[in-house]
Amino acid sequence: MKTMLLSAVLLAGAAAASAAIQTKTVDYQQGGAALQGELVWDDAVSGPRPGVLVVHQWLGITDYEKHRATMLAQLGYVAFCADIYGRDARPKNVGEAGAAAGKYKADRALLRGRVNAGLAQLKQSELADPKRLAAIGYCFGGTAVLELARSGAELNGVVSFHGGLDSPAPADGRNIKCPVLVCHGADDPFEKPEDLAAFESEMREAKVDWRLIKYGGAVHSFTQPDPGFVNPGARYNEKADKRSWADLKLFFAEIFP
Amino acid sequence: MKTMLLSAVLLAGAAAASAAIQTKTVDYQQGGAALQGELVWDDAVSGPRPGVLVVHQWLGITDYEKHRATMLAQLGYVAFCADIYGRDARPKNVGEAGAAAGKYKADRALLRGRVNAGLAQLKQSELADPKRLAAIGYCFGGTAVLELARSGAELNGVVSFHGGLDSPAPADGRNIKCPVLVCHGADDPFEKPEDLAAFESEMREAKVDWRLIKYGGAVHSFTQPDPGFVNPGARYNEKADKRSWADLKLFFAEIFP
Repeated sequence: MKTMLLSAVLLAGAAAASAAIQTKTVDYQQGGAALQGELVWDDAVSGPRPGVLVVHQWLGITDYEKHRATMLAQLGYVAFCADIYGRDARPKNVGEAGAAAGKYKADRALLRGRVNAGLAQLKQSELADPKRLAAIGYCFGGTAVLELARSGAELNGVVSFHGGLDSPAPADGRNIKCPVLVCHGADDPFEKPEDLAAFESEMREAKVDWRLIKYGGAVHSFTQPDPGFVNPGARYNEKADKRSWADLKLFFAEIFP
Repeated sequence: MKTMLLSAVLLAGAAAASAAIQTKTVDYQQGGAALQGELVWDDAVSGPRPGVLVVHQWLGITDYEKHRATMLAQLGYVAFCADIYGRDARPKNVGEAGAAAGKYKADRALLRGRVNAGLAQLKQSELADPKRLAAIGYCFGGTAVLELARSGAELNGVVSFHGGLDSPAPADGRNIKCPVLVCHGADDPFEKPEDLAAFESEMREAKVDWRLIKYGGAVHSFTQPDPGFVNPGARYNEKADKRSWADLKLFFAEIFP
């Protein structure tokens, strides 16, 4: 009887926890630009918890990032979807997305400023433990979190999913203070072998604590059921999506013991 | 009181389980050669369980392989340390080890015969579920388990740790029926970039379900505290060792649901 009661309490607790995901829109600024991110957490978790910055792909913040943030909140983290482009600069199509991503990829100082501004928002939330922070990013956002690490940000780890790995300033690898995990589609046609090789050299020379996983059969955007455009080089891959998420959880278990 | 009793029973169970690792020396033959392997299991586990073939590095079966087999038994698997070289052909030094490994690397048909003979031994054990089998190998043994897969063996998965990835017959990749995980030291000087590239091409062309993890800072033999010789290109790396074992566990959780 006692056991049954206990089970009932546990079940009720689990139901309450999964129903308790909260989101809050956060307005903030960087270099005069108005930015708007989204904080996501589970209010069944009490006290400061590890915080995870989520950086968007080339289309800017979409439901995709909010979904990933929700998945992170369900794991007990507080997640903040950073806004790189600005509240009033959300791309409406892939043409605008390409232009926006291109602008920030060409101006790494600006990109670093924007992603650091997102990290600062996460860090100042009373829900986040400021000593336990990570950043993850998808495609363009993968590049952004690597630039965050290259800027010398204090983090416990960064994860790039099908992100651009190239760097115009490879010597900045020496500023990286945290473990780096790169989840890469082995057949990604948008990431040239020479960019991969240059990334590895950057990590090696800078003695970064890094690892890179190549998922066979996966191309660009392998975690995104709707990459926003039709191209055989950018396609969802369920196996690689699930495996890379399991790899993220293993990485987080290591950096947030 | 009931809770305390239950805890006591659970603790006693856990202690019994960890003290219950059993080993059995198994003599078998292949092509007229006398082979001698080692079966390792936990007799606290009842009934058939997934079986894991463990293939040795260039020195032949040593305490290292038995230790890995014990770790697998502690996870609930039954492990069999296969003997590739033969009971009376165990290398006594690195010179003999190099000659032995070289012989089998030059004769892949013989290597396949030997590693398949080991798999057959594991499969016929009443402790192993013949429908749930995997093979793992270290250095030379990594090559051996890839050759096992290339021979068309029925397996749920193979894992190579710092193994040689080259193949004299890349078309045989098409015989691979199971997921492949390669755990590779990103700074391994014994595995040439062209061999890595050829391996990836083999997997890609054959549409194998594969993934490869590069561990930054790790060289050859990164899982072996004593690689048997002194060379800056072959050195233990505790981080990469622990991470690759965690990656193995994740892979096994996927292939043995």
